[in-house]
Amino acid sequence: MMKILRVNMKEQSVKIEDSPSEYRFKGGRGLTAQILLEEVTPTCEPLGRQNKLVLAPGLLGGTAAPCSGRLSIGGKSPLTGGIKESNAGGMFGQRLARAGYQAVILEEQPASGWFILKIDAQGVSFLNADKLLGLDNYEACERLREEYGDKIGIVVIGEAGERLYSIATCAIADVDGIPARQAARGGLGAVMGSKGIKAIIVDDSKPVDFEFSDDNLYRETCKAWRKELIEKKKVLTDYGTAALVMGTSKIGCLVTRNYRYGDTDKKESISGERLADLMKERGGNPTHNCMKGCPIRCSNIYHDSNGNHLTSSLEFETIGLLGSNLEIYDPDVIAKLDRFCDGFGIDTMDFGGAIGVAMEAGLLDFGDGEAVIGLIDELKNDTMLGKILVQGVAVTGKVLGVRRTPAVKGQGLAAYDPRSLKGTGVTYATSPMGADHTAGNCLPGRKGYRPETQDVTDTGLAEGQIGLSQDFQIMHAVCDAAGLCFFVGADEVTLNHVKTLLNARYNENFSFEDILDIGKNTILAELEFNKKAGITSAQNYLPEFFREEELPPRGTRFDIDAKELAAFYDDWQK
Amino acid sequence: MMKILRVNMKEQSVKIEDSPSEYRFKGGRGLTAQILLEEVTPTCEPLGRQNKLVLAPGLLGGTAAPCSGRLSIGGKSPLTGGIKESNAGGMFGQRLARAGYQAVILEEQPASGWFILKIDAQGVSFLNADKLLGLDNYEACERLREEYGDKIGIVVIGEAGERLYSIATCAIADVDGIPARQAARGGLGAVMGSKGIKAIIVDDSKPVDFEFSDDNLYRETCKAWRKELIEKKKVLTDYGTAALVMGTSKIGCLVTRNYRYGDTDKKESISGERLADLMKERGGNPTHNCMKGCPIRCSNIYHDSNGNHLTSSLEFETIGLLGSNLEIYDPDVIAKLDRFCDGFGIDTMDFGGAIGVAMEAGLLDFGDGEAVIGLIDELKNDTMLGKILVQGVAVTGKVLGVRRTPAVKGQGLAAYDPRSLKGTGVTYATSPMGADHTAGNCLPGRKGYRPETQDVTDTGLAEGQIGLSQDFQIMHAVCDAAGLCFFVGADEVTLNHVKTLLNARYNENFSFEDILDIGKNTILAELEFNKKAGITSAQNYLPEFFREEELPPRGTRFDIDAKELAAFYDDWQK
Repeated sequence: MMKILRVNMKEQSVKIEDSPSEYRFKGGRGLTAQILLEEVTPTCEPLGRQNKLVLAPGLLGGTAAPCSGRLSIGGKSPLTGGIKESNAGGMFGQRLARAGYQAVILEEQPASGWFILKIDAQGVSFLNADKLLGLDNYEACERLREEYGDKIGIVVIGEAGERLYSIATCAIADVDGIPARQAARGGLGAVMGSKGIKAIIVDDSKPVDFEFSDDNLYRETCKAWRKELIEKKKVLTDYGTAALVMGTSKIGCLVTRNYRYGDTDKKESISGERLADLMKERGGNPTHNCMKGCPIRCSNIYHDSNGNHLTSSLEFETIGLLGSNLEIYDPDVIAKLDRFCDGFGIDTMDFGGAIGVAMEAGLLDFGDGEAVIGLIDELKNDTMLGKILVQGVAVTGKVLGVRRTPAVKGQGLAAYDPRSLKGTGVTYATSPMGADHTAGNCLPGRKGYRPETQDVTDTGLAEGQIGLSQDFQIMHAVCDAAGLCFFVGADEVTLNHVKTLLNARYNENFSFEDILDIGKNTILAELEFNKKAGITSAQNYLPEFFREEELPPRGTRFDIDAKELAAFYDDWQK
Repeated sequence: MMKILRVNMKEQSVKIEDSPSEYRFKGGRGLTAQILLEEVTPTCEPLGRQNKLVLAPGLLGGTAAPCSGRLSIGGKSPLTGGIKESNAGGMFGQRLARAGYQAVILEEQPASGWFILKIDAQGVSFLNADKLLGLDNYEACERLREEYGDKIGIVVIGEAGERLYSIATCAIADVDGIPARQAARGGLGAVMGSKGIKAIIVDDSKPVDFEFSDDNLYRETCKAWRKELIEKKKVLTDYGTAALVMGTSKIGCLVTRNYRYGDTDKKESISGERLADLMKERGGNPTHNCMKGCPIRCSNIYHDSNGNHLTSSLEFETIGLLGSNLEIYDPDVIAKLDRFCDGFGIDTMDFGGAIGVAMEAGLLDFGDGEAVIGLIDELKNDTMLGKILVQGVAVTGKVLGVRRTPAVKGQGLAAYDPRSLKGTGVTYATSPMGADHTAGNCLPGRKGYRPETQDVTDTGLAEGQIGLSQDFQIMHAVCDAAGLCFFVGADEVTLNHVKTLLNARYNENFSFEDILDIGKNTILAELEFNKKAGITSAQNYLPEFFREEELPPRGTRFDIDAKELAAFYDDWQK
């Protein structure tokens, strides 16, 4: 039986509980949502003692299911004031599941001091973290592996998390022990910091045995699925998520100059193709796995012009928000910024958005890469400007007096302009997560599961986008609960695999509808938390400029009916 | 018949409409709430074209009723994101009513340019405001009176309003043409700025005739009421609102050191008694009227040690929040800050609260008056720190990473600590206005109107405070709708006078209950707006430290039941 590890940071004490039976089919985001709803006062201060930070592998975590090692981290967000889950790859999720834990719940705050939590099958040791304080995530991971070996999973916060910045991340070490994977959105690194925890390491050297009611079916399904992914995801394998630069440009939704244009003639200099060539030339690697056994390998290793490691891994959202959004088209500048963000521990997306807004305010010029690199010192030195930017897009826009501020419910938008990718715009507006593309990204070519959403193919037309976003929000939530990576594709095929695997493991007879319910119930729990926190569907809207300004080159506006956005979840809540 | 003046700032065009009959008994805050609810999209951006700024005198405005010349200014607040009304004395309210206007509604935004609106019985002239730009409110009022004579009412914004700062005020000139009266709370000065309006002047040289169905009763009631006020309000006449320094100290709720203590042994140096002596010694005046005919005269004129005018008028909230809250006990320092705030056009309360939080963050020392004076240049020069502080307490706390941040729904608390003045704490938590004491201040000695609230006399005990705050919120809302000054006392006596006067004027037969309904309906309209804006009763709570930290000297905590706060208005909304 899986366990719940409950850690009280005030007392530095631990309880290990058997997972309640109600949690049997709750994992990842589904479980963080449920625990937060049951245990946390929704109106509590995100950085106060009443908030909790929950870490949970997914329902398939620790098994041979491909790409199933994501770790969900959940808490009340200091950025949005609502419930938040952010998940990432790397090795921690797999190892935590193999160590036998369905969730780790971090509670309360120490009177003083900073801790490393060392988790193993016996529970937790509270180790002094003084020597890690002030270190960036790369250094911290190196020290931890020096001391505790390289067979550990690591979650760590950078200086940003120590300082409780609202866009602080939880970094998760990848297979090489590099903090390339970040549970980046919503400031959960600050929540971890508020608990006095610099790092969590998990040692799964004595793994639990998972039982499978139909071992053979489980294994064969995983095998076939892996093969499928290798074939279907070749673009991601070759170019990583950066492949989306040309893809989004094609439909005119690549964020450019603080969401003023949807395309740029400079896109090729930051395209996946260009970056893959650069990486190969310089001895990096465009095809790298963040977790063990991943058949897609969309991660990468980016070297500088001298052939030295600069960053792992350069992703589309970073390229969009710290690149075209700022009119910066030099991949080395973007890579330097990425390296800084990963080490310091801040979300590249909300940071990029905030810089775009600062450019809009005239503080620095669009396209001025050196000036943006200069901001690194503002953050490191905790200057007033630094303090503003680390609050993310929304607060930066407020303080700098900018109305063109791309944020929803306190969180910055992803690198897709919602006027030419309207389904994703619907997701931004309605998701309990804030403006997260990972909550339901309606890219062209992807299909909903209901017949009525099959015909929605033009991403720039309003019709049908509500339904499409509903479908994707549910399917993404299923993947997030299963611990599956975003890039297996949140679609019918994937959900059928999840169904088969859960049935094979637990001798169940789940239907496709039952699997959908895993996603739906996750979102319903999140909506309930938010409602109690004072966040309602009245806030399901995008900033006015998306409705008022046309987006070149297509001339689109965000024209989804406001009432339908406000009523988005009404049917489910009846 | 009274008129509604509708001003379109995009077209610089005007419509003058007869007041609809449904508005007959809506005035001041009651009318601004109703118009905003009917006409403004609650989710609009406060500084965008969809918001409106509504100016309305009260139901008794322009008549001989004592202290009835308050002007209500309403709009969606850039500070709270909810509906906001802020009212103040001075001459504009009386004159606007006498010019025949029940409300002025400012709509849309100009493509460019800044305007002075000159209102008279014929409508509006749009005058070029270039020569007033960048002037502080004192200078701007002087120029306006030089050009348009001293028989005008003036509403003006300082540089803060021009720059759309979230704590920008609308300043209203007093009888002497000094911008001593400020509709200060909620950033409505920024809304006025967003409409491209630097100043509004009203010329009532051709006043309309008000008809009274029982002229004699109206006149006699006013006369008797005036006499009553002169007798009952002697303390305010002698010491102004500063009398509250000793009063709040006595019950241990005088905010001290960022809400850490409820009293200080230095209180006498900032007491009303001390200030009155100083003013007399230096040739100022502790007893001054802000509007014509006021029998209370709680305003004052404060001179510096050389006998030169320093500020009009030094009020309790300013003394509390820029004085004891910062451990500044030199009245000259507080007066200098007050003069700056009135001229620059920012709310002394949210500014004082923000500085307290900056002190908490270690940016400057408590008690360091010179350092606080130094902040003036930060604001004038629009530095990063300046930009943060002018966002008010809540954003300042967020950016500076301070959890002891005294704000509710985005607005800073008034100068009464809610732990030892619990009824006012209930008002802070529940009012649709945010943490406004003027929405229902439960000072000792004041009585609710219901029998069950009569026995609530200990301000530090939880019992009965919900009911007391309900009574006061309604009675305050009646006064705000009537255009009555806060200091006539929002009580049964006042409401009975309002009843008599409305009946005498309109040949009505209103009961006391009918008069209460004026207040209740105001609040219900505000709640409905807020609900549609996404602000719900789930947000009816105070910052955690008020529950967790004891307040010396009495050792009180804010222990009002959280569920009762959330359910505060439930009965009314059924």
